[in-house]
Amino acid sequence: MREVCIIGAGLTRFKEHWSSSLRDLFVEAALKAIDDAKVSEIASMYVGSMSSGLFVEQEHIGPMLVEYLGVKNVPAVRVESACASGSLAFRMGFIEVASGLSDIVLVSGVEKMTDCEDVTSALAAAADVENEVFFGATFPALYALIARAHMDSYGTTREQLAAVSVKNHKNGAKNPDAQFQREVSLDAVLNSVMIADPLTILQCSPISDGAAVMILAPLDMAKKMTDKVVKITGSGAATDTIALHSRKEIASLDAVRLSAERAYNMARKKPEDIDVCEVHDCFSIAELVAIEELGFVKKGKSGKFVEEGNTEIGGKIPINTSGGLKAKGHPVGATGIAQIIEIYKQLTGNAGERQVKDAKIGMTQNMGGTGASSVVHIMEVV
Amino acid sequence: MREVCIIGAGLTRFKEHWSSSLRDLFVEAALKAIDDAKVSEIASMYVGSMSSGLFVEQEHIGPMLVEYLGVKNVPAVRVESACASGSLAFRMGFIEVASGLSDIVLVSGVEKMTDCEDVTSALAAAADVENEVFFGATFPALYALIARAHMDSYGTTREQLAAVSVKNHKNGAKNPDAQFQREVSLDAVLNSVMIADPLTILQCSPISDGAAVMILAPLDMAKKMTDKVVKITGSGAATDTIALHSRKEIASLDAVRLSAERAYNMARKKPEDIDVCEVHDCFSIAELVAIEELGFVKKGKSGKFVEEGNTEIGGKIPINTSGGLKAKGHPVGATGIAQIIEIYKQLTGNAGERQVKDAKIGMTQNMGGTGASSVVHIMEVV
Repeated sequence: MREVCIIGAGLTRFKEHWSSSLRDLFVEAALKAIDDAKVSEIASMYVGSMSSGLFVEQEHIGPMLVEYLGVKNVPAVRVESACASGSLAFRMGFIEVASGLSDIVLVSGVEKMTDCEDVTSALAAAADVENEVFFGATFPALYALIARAHMDSYGTTREQLAAVSVKNHKNGAKNPDAQFQREVSLDAVLNSVMIADPLTILQCSPISDGAAVMILAPLDMAKKMTDKVVKITGSGAATDTIALHSRKEIASLDAVRLSAERAYNMARKKPEDIDVCEVHDCFSIAELVAIEELGFVKKGKSGKFVEEGNTEIGGKIPINTSGGLKAKGHPVGATGIAQIIEIYKQLTGNAGERQVKDAKIGMTQNMGGTGASSVVHIMEVV
Repeated sequence: MREVCIIGAGLTRFKEHWSSSLRDLFVEAALKAIDDAKVSEIASMYVGSMSSGLFVEQEHIGPMLVEYLGVKNVPAVRVESACASGSLAFRMGFIEVASGLSDIVLVSGVEKMTDCEDVTSALAAAADVENEVFFGATFPALYALIARAHMDSYGTTREQLAAVSVKNHKNGAKNPDAQFQREVSLDAVLNSVMIADPLTILQCSPISDGAAVMILAPLDMAKKMTDKVVKITGSGAATDTIALHSRKEIASLDAVRLSAERAYNMARKKPEDIDVCEVHDCFSIAELVAIEELGFVKKGKSGKFVEEGNTEIGGKIPINTSGGLKAKGHPVGATGIAQIIEIYKQLTGNAGERQVKDAKIGMTQNMGGTGASSVVHIMEVV
């Protein structure tokens, strides 16, 4: 396998984009990425999108976006694994460059959610429709079950859950691309509208529109093309049962642990080697479980770990410096790529006010459904 | 890049499967393929499906099918490019094995269409929804425009179009996995219900349920595992504008020509080297244009070529020995894999009554929308 690097990135701000279509969002981000990478041609393109079909009634967006970007006839593949679609598109591009088939590959994620009449139902298509959704479960309810189990097994408190949102909003306030660029207090999080007990609305990621695009190249070419070269040293993916009730234990996320193990093995790294990490905080509880499965803190100890400030910028392991899905926004298919862009910015010293000092090795963890799919990447400064 | 081989295949019959769900269909085909390849483990899985979201309201089918197949925690990716989804899933698996990342990879396609209330609308999501579908275009109408243009430019006749269906039904009658296992006369095709002039219903592929699965392995392992080794020597993909009206000329399909050129170049083969080929005959006209773009006959001469029997079993270049999409059926996401399975059967001498004598090199061409995406594979007996 060839070594693969990131040579450029671009994204739209994540927010409710009432005057931009899915095509517009993608093209905006893609032109920024192409400009950033200074490439004149691309050999292949991957698009992560959870459900352009249910959100905007359009499938087959690969060729559509090739056409609108103006990169005529380039092969394009849409990749889907619910909210992990973006990271899987990245992984596919990584594999294509690693194989030697193509040199310059565009990887992307895009979602236009606000044009959909019933986003909650469309999102529920990422759960087991026959065995969960049909009986009334939605994602806030399913993640609330995980939160309840975590509280029950490990004594995790409501305040610890809420602390995740406080920290992520604090980071989001420093991110000009975030949907919510403002801080929130612990009281505000705890006393906001209850969605599915114990999860209040300020512990749920929002509905967002947005696109994120990166350009990949083999190491030898990358070195000649830019001085901002970041190498992908680990890529791990795993799946778990689609229905939460089929798992032995619901306060754990096996696919997250396995995808991390696979990425650590490929990169020959351990949790303590990671300087900065973006995790999939679709709900506050998801971040707590994720940092346990990634090995940053022992099982059951994440609540206290976050409460004590270990995951803040300047802490032991800064988590979600971008603001996370909670504050940065969560246009589902775009999220995985946007996470990697945040790490790319951190590793190239371009994270502005959110810069983690001396960040050399970064990680991302992106998840679909209630952890039925998880994808982890490890990146290092060359 | 490592050399990649097919070591096993399985498919359901294509038909209206009223008592099987998408999960059931996939598992039936996957168990057959695993049994055929005699593998005990798989490292990774790809699923081609055009729109599980619009057809059965379920996204995120990668992990769901991993769970139902019982291959716990295996990474899974759903791949979509409308009706070319199956071939793209195959191409992704090919790239993953070629890269050296994984050895035994399962590639598949599945679609459950008959549970959907409005299949024509769901399928229309493969066209340009904003600029074609909104104004009333459906796929039969769009392909009828291509047929009209071909008749106008090259003098192609209604009888020549109908001859495609007659030939494909003749082949389908010999295929126990085909949806329609009966012959039809030229008169029957010409006088069947008019859908979009000049295309009668017997020139339109049907609505189908089904799944098709193959197992891939690197050449060195494949040789030890089975004596039915078929090597993938060419893989080409290309895109074109999603809307038909954006093209300079609509009686041609640029993506088909380009994807074939790329596959021929990789395999170092020419059209005259191909012994048997499956093409994407979603409508009769599609087969005529495809065999021109693949280089089997000069531009504009396909009608006469088919009428004279050159594409029959025993003819110059047998096309769609399986019965094609027309007679075999067209569960859209499964079609690309099923095409490759037919060629695999031909090259391993397992095509029964439809066997092409001395078939050593085979080809498949799979298409999405009105040719906005096209994927071509070339395979050879080792």
